[in-house]
Amino acid sequence: MARGNIPLCYTPTIHTASSGGDTVRTFRIALAQINPTVGDLDGNTGKIIEYVELARDTGAHLVAFPELAIPGYPPEDLLFKPQFIQANIAKMLEVAAASRGIAVVVGFVDAGAYVHNAAAVAYDGEVVGKYHKMHLPNYGVFDEERYFQAGVECPVFTICGTPVGVNICEDIWHSVGPTVVQRAAGAEVVVNISASPFYAGKRRTREKMLAVRAADNGLFAAYVNIVGGQDELVFDGASIIHDPLGEEVARGAQFEEDLVVADLDVESVFRSRLRDKRPRRQPQDALGDVGRPARLHVSDAPGVSAAAPSVVPVKAVTEGRPPDGLDGAAEVYAALALGTRDYVRKTGFDKVFVALSGGIDSSVVAAIAADALGHENVIGVAMPSRYSSEGSVLDAMELADRLEMELWEIPIEETFGAYLNTLESRFRDTEPGVAEENLQSRIRGTLMMALVNKFGGLALTTGNKSEMAVGYATIYGDMAGGYAVIKDVPKTMVYELARYRNSVGGRPPIPDSVLSKPPSAELRPEQKDEDSLPPYETLDPILKAYVEDDLGFDEIVGLGFDESVVKQVVTLVDRSEHKRRQAPPGIKITPRNFGRDRRMPIANRYRPF
Amino acid sequence: MARGNIPLCYTPTIHTASSGGDTVRTFRIALAQINPTVGDLDGNTGKIIEYVELARDTGAHLVAFPELAIPGYPPEDLLFKPQFIQANIAKMLEVAAASRGIAVVVGFVDAGAYVHNAAAVAYDGEVVGKYHKMHLPNYGVFDEERYFQAGVECPVFTICGTPVGVNICEDIWHSVGPTVVQRAAGAEVVVNISASPFYAGKRRTREKMLAVRAADNGLFAAYVNIVGGQDELVFDGASIIHDPLGEEVARGAQFEEDLVVADLDVESVFRSRLRDKRPRRQPQDALGDVGRPARLHVSDAPGVSAAAPSVVPVKAVTEGRPPDGLDGAAEVYAALALGTRDYVRKTGFDKVFVALSGGIDSSVVAAIAADALGHENVIGVAMPSRYSSEGSVLDAMELADRLEMELWEIPIEETFGAYLNTLESRFRDTEPGVAEENLQSRIRGTLMMALVNKFGGLALTTGNKSEMAVGYATIYGDMAGGYAVIKDVPKTMVYELARYRNSVGGRPPIPDSVLSKPPSAELRPEQKDEDSLPPYETLDPILKAYVEDDLGFDEIVGLGFDESVVKQVVTLVDRSEHKRRQAPPGIKITPRNFGRDRRMPIANRYRPF
Repeated sequence: MARGNIPLCYTPTIHTASSGGDTVRTFRIALAQINPTVGDLDGNTGKIIEYVELARDTGAHLVAFPELAIPGYPPEDLLFKPQFIQANIAKMLEVAAASRGIAVVVGFVDAGAYVHNAAAVAYDGEVVGKYHKMHLPNYGVFDEERYFQAGVECPVFTICGTPVGVNICEDIWHSVGPTVVQRAAGAEVVVNISASPFYAGKRRTREKMLAVRAADNGLFAAYVNIVGGQDELVFDGASIIHDPLGEEVARGAQFEEDLVVADLDVESVFRSRLRDKRPRRQPQDALGDVGRPARLHVSDAPGVSAAAPSVVPVKAVTEGRPPDGLDGAAEVYAALALGTRDYVRKTGFDKVFVALSGGIDSSVVAAIAADALGHENVIGVAMPSRYSSEGSVLDAMELADRLEMELWEIPIEETFGAYLNTLESRFRDTEPGVAEENLQSRIRGTLMMALVNKFGGLALTTGNKSEMAVGYATIYGDMAGGYAVIKDVPKTMVYELARYRNSVGGRPPIPDSVLSKPPSAELRPEQKDEDSLPPYETLDPILKAYVEDDLGFDEIVGLGFDESVVKQVVTLVDRSEHKRRQAPPGIKITPRNFGRDRRMPIANRYRPF
Repeated sequence: MARGNIPLCYTPTIHTASSGGDTVRTFRIALAQINPTVGDLDGNTGKIIEYVELARDTGAHLVAFPELAIPGYPPEDLLFKPQFIQANIAKMLEVAAASRGIAVVVGFVDAGAYVHNAAAVAYDGEVVGKYHKMHLPNYGVFDEERYFQAGVECPVFTICGTPVGVNICEDIWHSVGPTVVQRAAGAEVVVNISASPFYAGKRRTREKMLAVRAADNGLFAAYVNIVGGQDELVFDGASIIHDPLGEEVARGAQFEEDLVVADLDVESVFRSRLRDKRPRRQPQDALGDVGRPARLHVSDAPGVSAAAPSVVPVKAVTEGRPPDGLDGAAEVYAALALGTRDYVRKTGFDKVFVALSGGIDSSVVAAIAADALGHENVIGVAMPSRYSSEGSVLDAMELADRLEMELWEIPIEETFGAYLNTLESRFRDTEPGVAEENLQSRIRGTLMMALVNKFGGLALTTGNKSEMAVGYATIYGDMAGGYAVIKDVPKTMVYELARYRNSVGGRPPIPDSVLSKPPSAELRPEQKDEDSLPPYETLDPILKAYVEDDLGFDEIVGLGFDESVVKQVVTLVDRSEHKRRQAPPGIKITPRNFGRDRRMPIANRYRPF
């Protein structure tokens, strides 16, 4: 029996009848890992159609696009605008119309009686079916219960003779979810379209889960992720395909657009299931509450397409990258560069200003900005005061020189004097203190804003996560700016990023003196961060325990920290919430950042000790 | 048969047996409308126990406290801290221990296999049962799906012989929800404990719903709401009891703590049900999916307590207030004053600074602050520039004089000159524009922050919703401060508030000249708001249509506005999201404010026309 005769309603028994011979049944899949922009329905759709054509040229049977690829992810409260949803549906139909000779799976917002986070499956110009996301994340940065109704049906589409289940992001993280229902309904391939926000190390967790999901269900799991930055989130791409044994078949680039094409030996699914007794032992009735299976027929075309396999660029490893992906500081650095580039460009800017103090934070931010936007688009601004050490200004100049960026020097002394003069009648008889220190920082913030107001561009702020956590930053001062590049990077990791960047070849951009001098805000004579704060090697693990892991006071002390230090740190964190609420957005790179990921009351009398 | 003999498992047939005589069966209920602070477990519990004692002294059978009264509402991500939940449960047990001789219903966070938004029912020192909120709001400002598991059981507690259903906030907004299950299980009284965030006009909607819910189910509906401000939210109190015909029995004060005590003629429930055929026609099976009914016995004590009814302060109307509550500008003004007082005090401050420009916004904010905190705790700051009209400074002085508040004058001219001088080498050959205008605003913001840094207290900002919407405000300038009092008040309503405040007796605080002059930022010669913006009478309804009602472009034009004006306004709103993201918190008084209520992407290319 020819493969072309696989019946409409695909069932595994067909295999039995036809797998006597040695025919290899192959399904060519393309994963289009694209970088959409939220709200840019025209631009996103144009890009999707381009990738459909690229995929068709490879002879792929199916091309899959990420979750909500048409509206961009996350569209947030744009989803309350009926016109926005209607426009996104019209764009989905445009994509479907472009699906001549290839199946297309694309994320969009569906609307009928309810609104759904959906995947459309189109073939030969027509929408042949839809899938509605069943598991709606409503934790961390996610608010999907705010917008969407959960789906109930787990369709399997017979595409070019291969039964394919489609589900969306969170769905595949559930071991008892649509994947298992789709497997029970005969799926040999499951395509999961995702928008999975990055944090350091998440990719390994995700890939382990995907490998196990593929192996548990004895099918190919093809995972396509969005790539790019959107406000505080970065999506890392790293789309990946696992075979029915949980082995990696192909993977996409990290932090850049990619089209992953692979030939899946779907015949092997049947073979592996012959040896795997687990599904046979699983009571099918138990799946009754998980979701309704359904089967939709898409195309009878045989599993081997006209294009010769030899011309297919099976992309197993992105050139010049480690075969199993970036990790550690390299991964975080790439995320920060992508996040910065996309925020600046997607908000309509090209150049940025960075205040350079000669310290490690502003040096790392300048390096990231230069890598992300090109050195010609980064202008450093040195704003020395009476308390700036000579070394600081020289370090800033040296950094700018190495990064080949412009450096503008604008001293703050005259303005500082004018403020003190103006306030003299009120401040007379008071001791100089935080008011005078913050004045200097706010003069710098005001000057940065004057420059962007006058010359265009965005001011990048340079505060790190340790400072944001304990409030060691001046609101409307060094916190003034459009984007906070290292807002979610603990200080100790800022040093790692600097060392990493200096190590990757070429002239190391960050001077050794910047790496070696003790951190200081330089707002009063001889000031050092460690006058007010514990050393960062102590501070950072306490912050992780409290902010990211929600450990209690006793538990943190139990990790081996001094009780009084823990009290100091926890108190500082709790009292700085009002500052964080007015901070610019910045890139999430940890499991919990200070944006929508951690929603704390400002008026809050809870003290954990 | 004596009332004391009502059996453990109360059923309606008992009435039939005993209602032949003319005995009046009365249930005395107390609603403790308190103002907790989020996280203040000790303080909130102390207050609750005080009110339990007050209620016991009135002879009440039951006293009910609002939703999450022990942790405060909304606790947000404090709910991810296991220690916080444990501490709140310990406090709930303290409240239970204080329930000698009176039933207590109190909101807390329950935790077992899951975490629940819960009500504890205690009697005579013991917890006798719990209710878990079934309908978890996850829209608008609410994120309850982020934290809680929904309950499934709808218990009815027999309290002093009267069957009482307990449910929580959102639950009673569902016509097919726990209330109807509890009615079917015999409840004669339903106690709904709430934390219902205020917006103008919401109370009327809520009271209409509660009246209908009581009448539909033929029972007493006793609604107890939290009162007070918490970050951006104000809770208006206005607890209320409706009888089985939907008539008001008693109501609590608005915007202040109160203890509402009322005798409910629960015998009338049985009588009204004899005449109401609707429940008998309703198939009981249809309720199967709504929630499981359950019955818990609390106390057999008869329905009339030892205390003579004559000593009970049945609080039908709060003295000096309109009998059916505040509305319009009076209601909004009271909400703003309470929100301001609570934010300032709950964050640990007592005094505030307000920049006075002589304009309507700062005048209204100063009046609200003086009313909320006492005129001695409000310091006005006039910061004239070369562009300030003489009238502006005089108006600020006149206002301060009428409000009996201090006024500090700090001219910005010298500092402005210093900035221009410092920037001269860069700004040379450019036209003066927004950079120079914003400098003045940022000098003022910096001076305000220098004052609070030096002298303590909080800076209140004075921007209104119309400005926040279109971005007609300077970030780090007039937007710099701890709390934005009128951030959610459209400009046209700011005038209403001024006229209202001037009308309520005593010397009108806001000078006529402030009310009559055209709005101006006074950042360049002869500047008027209407140079850059449509008149506020046009702007405000367009903003409401776009921001609050999510109308599309064509729909807004269809309301009778000029196409080009609508385009201008919509574009300004969309382009100002980054400013709003860094704005201080302010009081929500409309159905949708610019805080957590409207979550828009910043990088967003969607254009609605």
